[in-house]
Amino acid sequence: MTTSRDETTRVLIEVAEAQSFVHQWLTRLSPVEAPLADALGCVASESVDAREAVPGFDNSAMDGYAVRSSDTTDGAVRLSVPEAVLAGDVASAALAPGEAMRIMTGAPLPVGADAVCMIEEATVDADGAHVVVPRPMGRGENVRRAGDDVVVGDRLVDAGVVIGAGLVGVLAGQGLALVSVYARPRVGVLSTGHELATDAGALRPGQIRDSNRPMLLALLRRSGFEPVDLGTVEDDAREIEGRFREGAATCDAVVSTGGVSVGDADHVKHVLTALCGERSRTMRVAVRPGKPFAFGVTRDEGVPLFGLAGNPVSTMVGYELFVRPALRRRAGFTDVERPRVTAVLDVPLERQKDGKLQIVFATAGVHHDGRVHVTSVARAGSHLLNAVASANACVPVPDGPGFAAGEVVPVMVLDADALFANGRADTDTAAPT
Amino acid sequence: MTTSRDETTRVLIEVAEAQSFVHQWLTRLSPVEAPLADALGCVASESVDAREAVPGFDNSAMDGYAVRSSDTTDGAVRLSVPEAVLAGDVASAALAPGEAMRIMTGAPLPVGADAVCMIEEATVDADGAHVVVPRPMGRGENVRRAGDDVVVGDRLVDAGVVIGAGLVGVLAGQGLALVSVYARPRVGVLSTGHELATDAGALRPGQIRDSNRPMLLALLRRSGFEPVDLGTVEDDAREIEGRFREGAATCDAVVSTGGVSVGDADHVKHVLTALCGERSRTMRVAVRPGKPFAFGVTRDEGVPLFGLAGNPVSTMVGYELFVRPALRRRAGFTDVERPRVTAVLDVPLERQKDGKLQIVFATAGVHHDGRVHVTSVARAGSHLLNAVASANACVPVPDGPGFAAGEVVPVMVLDADALFANGRADTDTAAPT
Repeated sequence: MTTSRDETTRVLIEVAEAQSFVHQWLTRLSPVEAPLADALGCVASESVDAREAVPGFDNSAMDGYAVRSSDTTDGAVRLSVPEAVLAGDVASAALAPGEAMRIMTGAPLPVGADAVCMIEEATVDADGAHVVVPRPMGRGENVRRAGDDVVVGDRLVDAGVVIGAGLVGVLAGQGLALVSVYARPRVGVLSTGHELATDAGALRPGQIRDSNRPMLLALLRRSGFEPVDLGTVEDDAREIEGRFREGAATCDAVVSTGGVSVGDADHVKHVLTALCGERSRTMRVAVRPGKPFAFGVTRDEGVPLFGLAGNPVSTMVGYELFVRPALRRRAGFTDVERPRVTAVLDVPLERQKDGKLQIVFATAGVHHDGRVHVTSVARAGSHLLNAVASANACVPVPDGPGFAAGEVVPVMVLDADALFANGRADTDTAAPT
Repeated sequence: MTTSRDETTRVLIEVAEAQSFVHQWLTRLSPVEAPLADALGCVASESVDAREAVPGFDNSAMDGYAVRSSDTTDGAVRLSVPEAVLAGDVASAALAPGEAMRIMTGAPLPVGADAVCMIEEATVDADGAHVVVPRPMGRGENVRRAGDDVVVGDRLVDAGVVIGAGLVGVLAGQGLALVSVYARPRVGVLSTGHELATDAGALRPGQIRDSNRPMLLALLRRSGFEPVDLGTVEDDAREIEGRFREGAATCDAVVSTGGVSVGDADHVKHVLTALCGERSRTMRVAVRPGKPFAFGVTRDEGVPLFGLAGNPVSTMVGYELFVRPALRRRAGFTDVERPRVTAVLDVPLERQKDGKLQIVFATAGVHHDGRVHVTSVARAGSHLLNAVASANACVPVPDGPGFAAGEVVPVMVLDADALFANGRADTDTAAPT
């Protein structure tokens, strides 16, 4: 047996260079016309201008009585009530001087009326035919004017904006059922490796469980992408190539784990070369964990294929450094990186010099001093998934002696909500029954 | 016509009292055994202890050569290579003195071996039958020990913990396909009102578009709940009751908008009383917007019914103050409130004294000084949805004169990721092609 040593793979490249290689071949997905509910969390590909004013007509902000303010200038005044207007209805006639019209919130203001007296302020006769308005009403009081919120032509959505729940409401308020967004990437996930057990039965000697695929499917979903399970595949070049082809034909990206290092059964990198040619590269990235990394964009479909290292923490790092930013870019986001925040280290972060950026998983929280603190860090080891499973941040530690406790360093935030939750006093532990 | 003035509804109650009323009747959903992928984001209802060690056996951390470290104590040594072990395989025999075994990452260490020499360090004969290990190997070097990450009996999940992507990987690594979690609440949403257009055609005079239902469906999805569209319904007590009954029979909660104020067509509050009896209450909450609020828990199913005010910003406030915390509690979270953070006001927040807590929607970001700043606030008005659609925070402004610019005040965070994004310099605007 000869070694498969490949000199080109022995050069360590910086994370930024690997990211640049990925991004240079990446294309953004085509825009689609998506139903509003499906567009939630997607990036608008076109601006949207208002085609209808909101409100569409002057209407009452209160349940009460529509009046002519000029009738009320002398204070308490008794007015006749010829009619009531419910929301959705229109008064049958204009409001004449000396008249008030019973009106519900949102109902169109009758012609002639310019103010509404709240029901709580008014005193009504038993038969409802007359009402006493107790004070002078200001012109426009309790009236919402047509176009208060939106006038025709207002820019409601800028291209590049993320469609949130509020915007869904705004667009629905225009009678729009569809909005142009970059498609939510469908992302195929496969695990490679002869060692992977394919069922939940007892493990044979040498076998392990596949934690990467379920974890990646979950990471993708948390990031707002649509995960597609492509299963596990043996260390067989033809089978692996077939599975990647299937993924490239049906998905917007494929992520695999395993098979990218220098081992005899590491076929993924060769498959990526076969499918992507010059648009692929097998890299040794100067990062720990996560050094072996293969990437290519298929010749046929332009679909990015990611070959991550098979150790679960390496998979996680590869996802954060390469996959998630690339997929966000593919989905039209310009803001593709995890947020970075400056944090106080409550613990030291020692490391050995080895020419690599070390990614340390950590628990961070906003503390009472208003600053983010890193309160604990996970044991390092590419196979120690349980140690990092509850981390909400990563500390990138550059090559060198590491950091001392008390130092203030940049931190990648993996779960921004947890950052706040970790810092709060737990005042809410009374569990409901 | 007589007014439907109801004296009991004229008392303003504090937000906290309304929240207490909601919570006193609320029950947590029953635990379910969920597939791991479906459990993502749910709360574990039981602890999970490890039933398998991870790794399950001593294995190689590198592609290389398994050796007896005692063979290498004199520095460079030439060893015979009788066999190769791939991941997933097991060596056919123990490693004898003077032997090395070719081994791939993750493959079980052969009996007798206690260290691995990286392939990059080793020099192999052309026929692969002998290898030179260039230096003394430390005992245990490049070996991952069984149980390094997890030993049998380790607590992997505590009851009450949220299942994140990392935990999905850890549980899959145990061969578990299911995990006990509190069910993800299915939440029915309906809009009530004669004024609502039911199609996208031109509006009749007095008609408006229904923005609340699409917005609530989106808000619920963003919060991790499962929204169920129950449609729109006319201001007809029987129809409304029927729709609520349908929702209570098929969902874990129902949220409606409209019909909870003092107007003539406000039937929702009466329907809630009919379905829930003493376990319901129609309230005027001391909050702006969002004052009218009805809540009940059905006698038959124990399903909470929320009647929110129909103005879209009132709906949003009602969702944040009442619906989301209650549903999180129902889903087993103990941490039910939005995170609160102390922020510097870059703009003044003036208000009139009116006995109510004012909820001001705002844009906030973490700035270079490491603090959260509120940089702009939305125009106030319960009908001004477009004005608040892109807010990522709320400032609760207590009754009084308001706040001056520069004051440091507590802020509710609606979108923690946006908090960081808003504060960053935009260094990433080069859009991909």
